[in-house]
Amino acid sequence: MAQYDFVILGAGPAGRRAAIQAAKLGKSVLVIDDRAKVGGVSVHTGTIPSKTLRETALNLSGWRERAFYGQGYRCRSSIKAGDLGHRLGKTLDYEVAVLEHQFARNGVRTLCGRGRFVDAHRIMVERELDGSRIEELVEARKVLVSVGTRPYRPPHIPFNGESVLDSDDFILNPRVPRSLTVVGGGVIGLEYATILSALDVPVTLVEPREQLLDFIDAEIVAHLTYAMRDRGISLRLGCSVRQVMFSEAGNPVCVLNDGRLAESEMVLFAAGRVGATDQLGLDACGLEPDERGRLVVDRKTFQTSHPDIYAAGDVIGFPSLASTSMEQGRAAACHAFGATIATDGQSPPYGVYSVPELSSVGLTEEAARATGIRYECGVARFRETSRGHIMGLEAGVLKLICDADSRKLIGVHIVGEGASELVHIGQAVINLGGTIDYFVENSFNYPTLAEGYKVAALDLWNRLQTGRALAPPEEPARDAA
Amino acid sequence: MAQYDFVILGAGPAGRRAAIQAAKLGKSVLVIDDRAKVGGVSVHTGTIPSKTLRETALNLSGWRERAFYGQGYRCRSSIKAGDLGHRLGKTLDYEVAVLEHQFARNGVRTLCGRGRFVDAHRIMVERELDGSRIEELVEARKVLVSVGTRPYRPPHIPFNGESVLDSDDFILNPRVPRSLTVVGGGVIGLEYATILSALDVPVTLVEPREQLLDFIDAEIVAHLTYAMRDRGISLRLGCSVRQVMFSEAGNPVCVLNDGRLAESEMVLFAAGRVGATDQLGLDACGLEPDERGRLVVDRKTFQTSHPDIYAAGDVIGFPSLASTSMEQGRAAACHAFGATIATDGQSPPYGVYSVPELSSVGLTEEAARATGIRYECGVARFRETSRGHIMGLEAGVLKLICDADSRKLIGVHIVGEGASELVHIGQAVINLGGTIDYFVENSFNYPTLAEGYKVAALDLWNRLQTGRALAPPEEPARDAA
Repeated sequence: MAQYDFVILGAGPAGRRAAIQAAKLGKSVLVIDDRAKVGGVSVHTGTIPSKTLRETALNLSGWRERAFYGQGYRCRSSIKAGDLGHRLGKTLDYEVAVLEHQFARNGVRTLCGRGRFVDAHRIMVERELDGSRIEELVEARKVLVSVGTRPYRPPHIPFNGESVLDSDDFILNPRVPRSLTVVGGGVIGLEYATILSALDVPVTLVEPREQLLDFIDAEIVAHLTYAMRDRGISLRLGCSVRQVMFSEAGNPVCVLNDGRLAESEMVLFAAGRVGATDQLGLDACGLEPDERGRLVVDRKTFQTSHPDIYAAGDVIGFPSLASTSMEQGRAAACHAFGATIATDGQSPPYGVYSVPELSSVGLTEEAARATGIRYECGVARFRETSRGHIMGLEAGVLKLICDADSRKLIGVHIVGEGASELVHIGQAVINLGGTIDYFVENSFNYPTLAEGYKVAALDLWNRLQTGRALAPPEEPARDAA
Repeated sequence: MAQYDFVILGAGPAGRRAAIQAAKLGKSVLVIDDRAKVGGVSVHTGTIPSKTLRETALNLSGWRERAFYGQGYRCRSSIKAGDLGHRLGKTLDYEVAVLEHQFARNGVRTLCGRGRFVDAHRIMVERELDGSRIEELVEARKVLVSVGTRPYRPPHIPFNGESVLDSDDFILNPRVPRSLTVVGGGVIGLEYATILSALDVPVTLVEPREQLLDFIDAEIVAHLTYAMRDRGISLRLGCSVRQVMFSEAGNPVCVLNDGRLAESEMVLFAAGRVGATDQLGLDACGLEPDERGRLVVDRKTFQTSHPDIYAAGDVIGFPSLASTSMEQGRAAACHAFGATIATDGQSPPYGVYSVPELSSVGLTEEAARATGIRYECGVARFRETSRGHIMGLEAGVLKLICDADSRKLIGVHIVGEGASELVHIGQAVINLGGTIDYFVENSFNYPTLAEGYKVAALDLWNRLQTGRALAPPEEPARDAA
C-alpha cells in the first residue's frame, strides 16, 4: 500500500497550494481528483471561466468605451456563443498546463479518481485503468479535504440543461440568451447577472434577502445596486422563487413568493452551493458535514474535529474565494507539518468580479461601528481623478475608513473598474500599520485611478481636522482657519 | 497695486497644487497663465492629451485583445483623425472644469496674461481687456515660477506644421500618418512612437544615446526595447539627425549622422523641451536659467537662489512628471509659508505611458549595486498569473529588489499593462518599511495582475534561501534540503 505524508482530496486552489507547500517542506504528497485535469472548480467551472467570460464580454461589447462612443457602440455587432467559448478554451488549457507543470516540478503525485475514507488515515481511490474500474488503497499521515462544492439544485427547480440551468451548466456551454432571470444574488449570481447585462441582455435578479452581499460595506453595495438598476437590471429583493413554469412559447417563468412573474429565455439558478462531501465516506473517520455538506474547522489551524484531517477552500464555507482558499491550503499544510506562518492579524482582500467590480479589505463601516471605536470615512469618486475622465468612467467609488484617534487605516472598499487590483494598495497600508497620512504625503502616478486614494484621504483628513477644531468647551478653542 | 501672499506663474500641475496648498494655509493667491484655460502643458498638450490619445488608440485598435483574436483584429476597420480628436475634446473640457472649480472653491484668483518680473517681489502682467492690451502690476510676498516647458526646436530642423512637427503641433491636431519617424527616445518620444505603432503605423525611432530611459531599471528597458522591435519598430540608437530633406513625393527624409536615411510621411521631433522662461524678465530678480531655460533650485525647499522665489515642475528639469510636479508645488507652498511636510525619504513612483507602460519606484538594480549593499532580485512575468492569461498578456514583467540582509523592499520595476497603477502596491511596502515577506505572507485577489508581486517575491525568497544554505566554509554547513 502506497504511503504518503499528505494526501489531498481535490486539486482546486486550496489543494494545489497545500500540495506545493507540503512538497517544499520535503513531504511526500498525493493529490486525488476525479477530474481528468487539475484545477478544481476554480479552473474548470468557477473563477477562471467566469472571469474570462467577463473579460470577453467587456471586450466584445465595447463596454469600457461606451461613455465616449455612446450606448449603441460595440466592437462586434453581434456576439455569439462561439465568441465566448473560443477565448475560454485557450485560457483553460494554459491554466491547466501551468498547474500540471507546477506539480511535476515539485514532485507532487496526482491520481485521477474518486477518494473515499476507509478510516482517518486510509483512503480508497476508485479509478479507471485501461477501461476497467480499479480500487487502490493509500495511507496518509495527514489528509486535506479540499473537494470544493457543486451547485445546490433544490428539487422544486426543473433543471433541464437548456433553459433552466445551474452555473456549471451555463459555463460549460456559454451562450447569450435574449433575456435572463438569475435566482440568487450572491457572488456567483451577481457576476453572471451583471456580465450578461453588459452584453445588453435584459436581466432580472431574484434574491431572498433584502440586501445583496452582507459582507461588503453597505455604502459600496448601495452604489452597485444603483448602478445595476440604472442600466435596467430588475432587482427583486426579498423574493424567492416558489416554482418555475413554462410559457406557451416554451420560456421558463419564475413564479415568485409574492405572486409576481418573471419570464425569460433562460433561468440561471445560483442560490448557493453544497460541499462535495457526500461520496467521501466521512462517517468512517467520524466527521459529520453540515446540512449543506460543509465541514467545520478551526479557522486558525484548519483542522477538523479529527486532528489529522484538515479541510480548506469552498468546502468550509465563507468566503469561498480562490485567493483565500489558497492561503487556507497553505496554512493547513504548514500546520500539519510543523512549519510556522506569520499571517496572523493580516487582513485578506475580497474581490467580486461583477460589472462593476467590487473589492474590499479590512473592516466595513458597519463592522467598525460595531467595535465601538471612533472612526471616520473619506470617499473619492473615480470621476474625480484624471484617469477616470480619460477612461470615461462615470461610476466608481473608493472609500477609506480610519481609526479617528490613531489615524490608522482600517478599511478600504472599492466599487468600479480595476477595484480588485487597486485594493492591494490599501491592503499594504492596513497590514503594515500605515495611517491615512500615508496617502496625503506620498505622490501617485498621474493619471491613475490609484489617485483616488489620495482624493479620499484628503476628504477624510479634512473631516478629522473639523473634529479637531471642535475642542471640548473647557479647553480654549483653537483657530479653525 | 494688488498685493498677494503668493503669486504663481503658470497653472500646470505644480502651480495648481501650490495654489491650493497656499490657499488652504489661509494665504491670498494669484495664478497667472497666458492660456485662456488653466491646466498648463499637462492638461493642454502634455500628460492628459497624450494619455487620452493612448487610451483611444488602444480601444479603437483592439490592441488589448489581439492575443486572442489575432493581429488582424481591430474594433474599427479604419481609425481617423476625428476619432482621436473627439474623445480628447471631451476629456479636456472636463479636466479644465474640474480645475477651475477647484480654484474657485479655494478662493484662488487667476489672471489670463503674461507675467514678467519687475523685481523679485513685483510682477507686471500684460493682458488683454476688451480687445486692447493693458499692463497691471502686482506685488507678491513669495513667487513660484512654474511656467513649464515648450518643445525644443533646433534651427536645423525644418518644422512646417504639416509633415515635420514637434509634439505640441501633433497633439493639437492629432492624425494617423501612414508612416512615422520619431526623433528623440525620451519619455515623450517613446510614448508617441509606441502609441502610433499600436495603430499599425510603421515607426522609426532615432535616439542619440545607446540606451533608452537611463533612469529606469536596465532590465525593464531591455524588455521594452525587445517588445518594440518585436512589433516592428525600427530603433536607431546611437544616431542623431543631421538634416531633414524631402523626397520627390514630398515626404520628409531624415539623414542620420551615420549616413542612413529614414523616409516617412511624418517626422515628429521630440528631442527635449526648454523651460519657458525667456519672457519672464528673470534678470530683474537676479536669476539666470541654464542653456535649456531651466532654473536650479534647492531640491528640498524648491527655492531658487533668491529665497522668496521658488520654482517647481518641468521648469526645474528631471523628472518632469505631472505627479512629481504636483508634490514639488505643494512642498514649495508649504516651505514658503512655514508649514511642515513629512515626505522626506519617501520614494515617488515614475510612470511612462508607452505601450507597454513602464512604472518604477525606489532603486533600480544599477543604483542598488552602486550603493554597495547586498541585494537580491525576483522577477515575475504577467503570463505567470491567471489574470495575465485571461487578458491574453504575452508581455509584462514585474521585478522586485530587496536588501538581502534586512529583506526590506527597495525597488519595484514594472513593464506591462497597468504598470502605472500596480506600482503603488510596491510603493506602499517600500515607504512603510515592509520586507519581501509581506508579499509571501499576504493573500491577493485572484485572478489579478497584482499576484505578480507574490510570484516575484517567492522567486526572490527562493534566491535568499539559496544564499542562506551556502554558509561560509568555517561554519558547519547546514542541510541544503
